[in-house]
Amino acid sequence: MKPAAEQLAGEAIAALAARGQTVAVAESLTGGMVAAALTSVPGSSTVFIGAVVAYATRLKTALLGVPGDLLAVHGPVHEDVAMAMARGVRDRLGATYGLATTGVAGPGPSDGRPAGTVFVAVGGPDGCTVRELALAGDRPQVRAGSVRAVLSLLLSTLPEDIS
Amino acid sequence: MKPAAEQLAGEAIAALAARGQTVAVAESLTGGMVAAALTSVPGSSTVFIGAVVAYATRLKTALLGVPGDLLAVHGPVHEDVAMAMARGVRDRLGATYGLATTGVAGPGPSDGRPAGTVFVAVGGPDGCTVRELALAGDRPQVRAGSVRAVLSLLLSTLPEDIS
Repeated sequence: MKPAAEQLAGEAIAALAARGQTVAVAESLTGGMVAAALTSVPGSSTVFIGAVVAYATRLKTALLGVPGDLLAVHGPVHEDVAMAMARGVRDRLGATYGLATTGVAGPGPSDGRPAGTVFVAVGGPDGCTVRELALAGDRPQVRAGSVRAVLSLLLSTLPEDIS
Repeated sequence: MKPAAEQLAGEAIAALAARGQTVAVAESLTGGMVAAALTSVPGSSTVFIGAVVAYATRLKTALLGVPGDLLAVHGPVHEDVAMAMARGVRDRLGATYGLATTGVAGPGPSDGRPAGTVFVAVGGPDGCTVRELALAGDRPQVRAGSVRAVLSLLLSTLPEDIS
């Protein structure tokens, strides 16, 4: 059984709190679910700064600074867009780590991509990591899988040693 | 049995879609849950523009334009802050309606207020409405009750006639 989002969120909050670090989130297809999972953890306010849900494509530029030409060339569902969202929310909200999700929740394709095509990204002090997912299932399953994936990517990105 | 957030979100999306109107959300204690409920509805992208989760108090000013002196005098859990958040997200994201939540999820008091003290607000073309709640229950119950309350307030705010 896969770990629930709340469990991964609890691990992430604990790991960042132990390091004295913070996190901010930029969400598209997950629509607030990553932020909701992180803030479900009591005491998360010392670690979680805030989130931007940039559902309308124009908000990805206005609120997160994703270059308009990147969106014009590739559309919103692209690895470079995910990385620009992660970097943008990290910079603009002033967090140690920025998380981002963009993709097609379904039902049906969108922006020229089949449902389940998702990019998750983590931007931090040592650079940015992005992962492409091809998720099966319906709209709730694709969204939930995306939440778990970006939290797992954050956990795998954190350095082992706490200094 | 109280209606689930998803049901209220579905009603809100349908009502706004029928009117050709849009919604944006500013969240504090609900931490993304209002946005997640709205985006759980297939086709919500024609209505839901985006959301700002302003968990850190400074983001309420930086991202939503809540006056700093208002926060300095009253703290973040106050009816005027809820209304300023609703107006701010409506203006900055360019939506017909702006929803806002601020309050104390618990466990325990915060910002000089007991857990369960919540303000929800809806800003729209005809002004701004705010409601104070004193919610019982644990942290998940207070957060879920706040989500239902702001969606119910939106539904009660919408004019009956579609023109």
